[in-house]
Amino acid sequence: MTEGGAPAAARAVLQQCLHARLQVKPAGEDSPAQWVQIDRGMVIYICFFKGATDDILPKMVSTLLGLRLCESDSGKRVSVSELPGSVLIVPQATLGGKAKGRAMQYHTNIGKEDGLRLYSDFVSLCERELLRAAGAAEAEVTVKCGTYGNRQVLQLDTNGPYTHLMDF
Amino acid sequence: MTEGGAPAAARAVLQQCLHARLQVKPAGEDSPAQWVQIDRGMVIYICFFKGATDDILPKMVSTLLGLRLCESDSGKRVSVSELPGSVLIVPQATLGGKAKGRAMQYHTNIGKEDGLRLYSDFVSLCERELLRAAGAAEAEVTVKCGTYGNRQVLQLDTNGPYTHLMDF
Repeated sequence: MTEGGAPAAARAVLQQCLHARLQVKPAGEDSPAQWVQIDRGMVIYICFFKGATDDILPKMVSTLLGLRLCESDSGKRVSVSELPGSVLIVPQATLGGKAKGRAMQYHTNIGKEDGLRLYSDFVSLCERELLRAAGAAEAEVTVKCGTYGNRQVLQLDTNGPYTHLMDF
Repeated sequence: MTEGGAPAAARAVLQQCLHARLQVKPAGEDSPAQWVQIDRGMVIYICFFKGATDDILPKMVSTLLGLRLCESDSGKRVSVSELPGSVLIVPQATLGGKAKGRAMQYHTNIGKEDGLRLYSDFVSLCERELLRAAGAAEAEVTVKCGTYGNRQVLQLDTNGPYTHLMDF
């Protein structure tokens, strides 16, 4: 549930990182696995629920990139845009899980096709917003993302993950 | 909010890991930093809210250790007890954060003294339950935990974090 009591349209878990590495393509017979990585910044685990639409994306992105969820060198709380830091986006459908008995169910998650479209648009919007903010600061930051629907093989190195949850 | 609509007494974020390492004492002038680590199993990030009492702990522990939140070698969903895997418990007060403007506030978090007591009891109960289950399976598993109130310097290596959220 969101603060207002309405069912959530999306859920994000946020963690600070010093370095994070995510597999975007598993090793094949003749090819090694492919990875993306970021240095200092924020990992965004993201899940969309049934009924989520495009119009929630701008507010989600401005909130996630603008909230003071990171820590500067001086220990001050700042946003990932202000840090300035990079962003790794991890599609994570399991965040929509609800327990039934000992099993987890994912009945409120959005369908695959709509989920992929929202995810792709969310990534694009994050890129545009972060690079705009970074451009102003002339900082070298990047947005990387996992492949929707794949297994998200992740390695994370933190100075304190400072884990936050946001429902939208 | 919990499923029933009551304010949550505790929040847990769960991630599978192949290996996880957590600093439990920072480096001093004459001493290196101290770490605990687990191999395959589950990381439990935990936060207690105002009003939480001891009587929620048994259900929390049996739920977290009994829910099918992990993946066996054959790809079957199993509990961390069934895996059998180890558990790393990370106190994570930031999970109780709520956005106000661009800042995060933690007004609904439990006080420090009560939080420490619940956290310690939660860790003890996890140890007892996991070792009881593992003893039956003659498996070598362990429960490790972070120091309450400290910075939680964490390194995580996963085969897919399979991140779940549980409110109690």
